[in-house]
Amino acid sequence: MRDSPLVTGSSPRTAAERKGDVLAKLEQSHVDGWVASASAKGIAHLVPLSLAWHGERIIVCVDPRSVTARNIAASRQARVALGGTRDVVVIDVALDEVVAVTNGAYAVADAFAAQADWDPRWSIDLPGSETGSYEFLCLLPRRIQAWREVDEHPGRTLMRAGRWLV
Amino acid sequence: MRDSPLVTGSSPRTAAERKGDVLAKLEQSHVDGWVASASAKGIAHLVPLSLAWHGERIIVCVDPRSVTARNIAASRQARVALGGTRDVVVIDVALDEVVAVTNGAYAVADAFAAQADWDPRWSIDLPGSETGSYEFLCLLPRRIQAWREVDEHPGRTLMRAGRWLV
Repeated sequence: MRDSPLVTGSSPRTAAERKGDVLAKLEQSHVDGWVASASAKGIAHLVPLSLAWHGERIIVCVDPRSVTARNIAASRQARVALGGTRDVVVIDVALDEVVAVTNGAYAVADAFAAQADWDPRWSIDLPGSETGSYEFLCLLPRRIQAWREVDEHPGRTLMRAGRWLV
Repeated sequence: MRDSPLVTGSSPRTAAERKGDVLAKLEQSHVDGWVASASAKGIAHLVPLSLAWHGERIIVCVDPRSVTARNIAASRQARVALGGTRDVVVIDVALDEVVAVTNGAYAVADAFAAQADWDPRWSIDLPGSETGSYEFLCLLPRRIQAWREVDEHPGRTLMRAGRWLV
């Protein structure tokens, strides 16, 4: 079902291989994820966001007025997908911490700027922008699943209740 | 922000171009979408699903016991993303109809089989499978947005309240 004949028909990856692939995706430069969140009324939302992987947490940067920010602030939960639809990483996350974007050097902002392709601290000094108009959401993985084809459905859960199974 | 120098720096697409690109993505063979749904308690879910575009509706095929099927049956709403995170199509959909998978030829199943890379009718006769163990969700687009880079944020809404704006 995939394009590459080098990959199609290969054996299912081991759990250790999948974990390595998940971490490689999380650590990649300029990586985006699809972030699904839900309102208290049960309305689903979905947007692509740049992310960074820092201190075992997924860091995204959002406008606090956005639907995603408001949903996650309320539910303290989201589901993030990385990779393509046939090389899937799905991560259920819990909101660990909200960090306001401020000027200067600090770990979360430095990590985000180093990995993502923008530094939200820049926007603070732009004419017309408001200081603190962005915030970092620090999201703690609780469950991680990774699979490519149907033959990888068994063994797709790599983390459960915040603990790697491998 | 994209890799290709042929594309970076190009002008924002017109609404008509974006609509053409959206329809091309929907009509593509073997196209998958990310389907975000939410439980009544506000817990987000997200999975990749094969889809078909038939009669102005997005058709997906699910196990009625799956989280996605149960969420959408309850909320009658989902949000579907197509394309990459930097060539985004986001479609808010309403559940229009649920069609059980049964043997034989009928329009929804034929359209799905022709476009997706599997035909759920096959599974009915497999040993160990239950007749009717899948169902088609026929999802009606209500709002469609399409953008690539920040320069395409203006004008990204192509359909509102179920009507194309272009």
